Amino acid sequence: MSIPNHSDLQATLDPARKSWIDSANDAACDFPIQNLPFGVFSTAQQAQARVGVAIGDQVADLAALHAAGLLRLPADTNVFARSALNDFIALGRDTWRSVRVQLSSLLAKETATLRDDAALRSRVFTKLADAKLHLPVDIPGYTDFYSSKEHATNVGAMFRDPKNALLPNWSEMPICYNGRASSVVVSGTPVRRPNGQLKLPDQERPVFGACRKLDIELETGFIIGRGNALGEPIACKDAEAHIFGIVLLNDWSARDIQQWEYVPLGPFNSKSFATTISPWIVTLDALEPFRVAQPVQEPQPLEYLRHSGEHAFDIALEVLLRPEGAAEATTIARTNFKHMYWTMAQQLAHHTVGGCNTRVGDLMGSGTISGPTDDSFGSLLELTWNAKNPLSLGSGGTRGFIEDGDELTLAGWCQGEGYRVGFGVCVGVVVPAI
Amino acid sequence: MSIPNHSDLQATLDPARKSWIDSANDAACDFPIQNLPFGVFSTAQQAQARVGVAIGDQVADLAALHAAGLLRLPADTNVFARSALNDFIALGRDTWRSVRVQLSSLLAKETATLRDDAALRSRVFTKLADAKLHLPVDIPGYTDFYSSKEHATNVGAMFRDPKNALLPNWSEMPICYNGRASSVVVSGTPVRRPNGQLKLPDQERPVFGACRKLDIELETGFIIGRGNALGEPIACKDAEAHIFGIVLLNDWSARDIQQWEYVPLGPFNSKSFATTISPWIVTLDALEPFRVAQPVQEPQPLEYLRHSGEHAFDIALEVLLRPEGAAEATTIARTNFKHMYWTMAQQLAHHTVGGCNTRVGDLMGSGTISGPTDDSFGSLLELTWNAKNPLSLGSGGTRGFIEDGDELTLAGWCQGEGYRVGFGVCVGVVVPAI
Repeated sequence: MSIPNHSDLQATLDPARKSWIDSANDAACDFPIQNLPFGVFSTAQQAQARVGVAIGDQVADLAALHAAGLLRLPADTNVFARSALNDFIALGRDTWRSVRVQLSSLLAKETATLRDDAALRSRVFTKLADAKLHLPVDIPGYTDFYSSKEHATNVGAMFRDPKNALLPNWSEMPICYNGRASSVVVSGTPVRRPNGQLKLPDQERPVFGACRKLDIELETGFIIGRGNALGEPIACKDAEAHIFGIVLLNDWSARDIQQWEYVPLGPFNSKSFATTISPWIVTLDALEPFRVAQPVQEPQPLEYLRHSGEHAFDIALEVLLRPEGAAEATTIARTNFKHMYWTMAQQLAHHTVGGCNTRVGDLMGSGTISGPTDDSFGSLLELTWNAKNPLSLGSGGTRGFIEDGDELTLAGWCQGEGYRVGFGVCVGVVVPAI
Repeated sequence: MSIPNHSDLQATLDPARKSWIDSANDAACDFPIQNLPFGVFSTAQQAQARVGVAIGDQVADLAALHAAGLLRLPADTNVFARSALNDFIALGRDTWRSVRVQLSSLLAKETATLRDDAALRSRVFTKLADAKLHLPVDIPGYTDFYSSKEHATNVGAMFRDPKNALLPNWSEMPICYNGRASSVVVSGTPVRRPNGQLKLPDQERPVFGACRKLDIELETGFIIGRGNALGEPIACKDAEAHIFGIVLLNDWSARDIQQWEYVPLGPFNSKSFATTISPWIVTLDALEPFRVAQPVQEPQPLEYLRHSGEHAFDIALEVLLRPEGAAEATTIARTNFKHMYWTMAQQLAHHTVGGCNTRVGDLMGSGTISGPTDDSFGSLLELTWNAKNPLSLGSGGTRGFIEDGDELTLAGWCQGEGYRVGFGVCVGVVVPAI
């Protein structure tokens, strides 16, 4: 395996590069040759999950490519023949990049190796529609940030004090909390409405019952590609080299359970029933052309949170809601990841500054991504202002919060010239409480 | 492997049972034949970590016992030849109990098998003093509760309002939050004083620096022995069958970092730099004789948190502090686990009631265990009332919070008739910030 240089990597990002897989060349396709996101899949024919890469409307089986001698790794072990990406990711950034360069070459229009070998192609490719997609990584730890200024301000205004909506610590650090890793599920997994304690305004004591204010949180999450040892912080300037890639993340939230339980130690049961992530991890390398400046930070952060250059990414995001049986989904929010106040690099620097160790596969949620306008908020709580202003759905009906049978979809993509680097979707249908 | 019945288990708890390992028969020994706690160890001669049981001043190597055909399991795989207990624990409660019964018999005074076979004994036993003890389980998830009424009241009085020290939700549910599993370390691991943001009273903005209010929290933690699937809560009456055993836990806390960061999502960097647990897991079976009634709960908890019978355990606990170079440690707190308001069963029922899944090896901290008297508080924050009343140490000097070089030790035991079931110790020495 040769270590790719800068121009090898740049070539994988060339907007003019096309694939011999026609569907990948469609301008509206999430998975063009410039993307090459990693995931884990299985098929009816081969139930053993293995690593794949999405290209057009196909999944390329990397375990099969490696077995065929077409994908070189630094060691002989076929780390693609695993049910999670962790062992591959642990091989390090040079390897991620080498595999990206090799795949981009194999899939390029002018490369005959796979293109002209029907037997090999049939072993390597599966239609995306026929693949069962699994959680792409084993997640040792899940942390959720709270890094959208608009979101924090909206929530503070609703639940605390509209005049002092943003708490004083918010502008000084990327506030975060530990989430529950065990209940992170892959897109498509049904989400059961949780039961819990609800404190109703007209009753002195809480009652037990099904959540009445079920909500989503539109987020992205980044996956740790290289951990750090206990006691050895990651500097802000080095942090992006520790990130493997990004997924969409829906931090399902039971607002009524949350409001009663969260003081003083933060949300717990209101979040731990499910967190959905999209199955394809879009690498930071694929996102490089979409790097933009982060918002101006005022006051200037403390030294350990400073970095030069651009560390935000221009990722268009939307949320769709489709009631059970409805033919069409309604887009209920449109926003962009670039609005986030704190960058991923700052989040990781803050996470580790006290010495906390991270591990390959750790998931770091961005926090709800709300934009500056009323239709760019990343939760129903904000979009409907706690159900005071219900949303009208295109298929009829209104929503304050989520109803049973509703299908919630997050989508995201970076718009290039004539192509887009997409995240696919992050979907969940809500099923009734037990 | 035969499944032990009630009388087999009772026999392992017989106070009159003695071991042919003399040190185990000492009334002050933590590890008599009635205890048989599980851990993971390695030795200078054999660096590969494996499962052991503490008995007197010795460790019995269960991998070696199994290899010698003296310890039967339901399948042939030697799950003791692993660097964590998870695979053994996953075999289920019948197996834990069978192994306990088999070990109790092998180690009993009247059993000749090991007692009279010097060659075998030399393969199986290591002096505790010569064993390197490892983290006993891989911990997929770590949750920390807040279940001592005295602790919650003390903290509320100090930081919020002495007149309304206990928040209204506290009496209705075992409040908890997700901790950071990656930084749970085994007793003996040095603890580095964390850096972080400190908000000093005389400055408008926070400064970055080493924690000035480093503290301990005296806790126990229980280890999940049988998990539950997502969406399938564990009923309160069934919860104890899901618990493998208990360790001592020191939830190191940076009070100044905590006070600035914890609103509104709870503590994060103030806790994630280290959590120390004791290396020996004392099984719930060994604790059975020390079961006592929990405190009366008023108001009566909601239905899902109710159980009949006794679900507290009489575990004496103490905290010792030894400054660097001092010959003697000072006992700075004495309390008892039986004071805890919420039981472990209630904690686990609440943890899963919304559908959250748990996994074998999950660690659930009790929360700081403070008793009703001023010398029974489980943190320096409470013992010194935020450094207002410094403690005098026997070796000279005083402490408001922890200083570099201080060695903090938690100890715990259940007092039987002529023996005690001990937890060993949970120790950490604080080293200076980087």
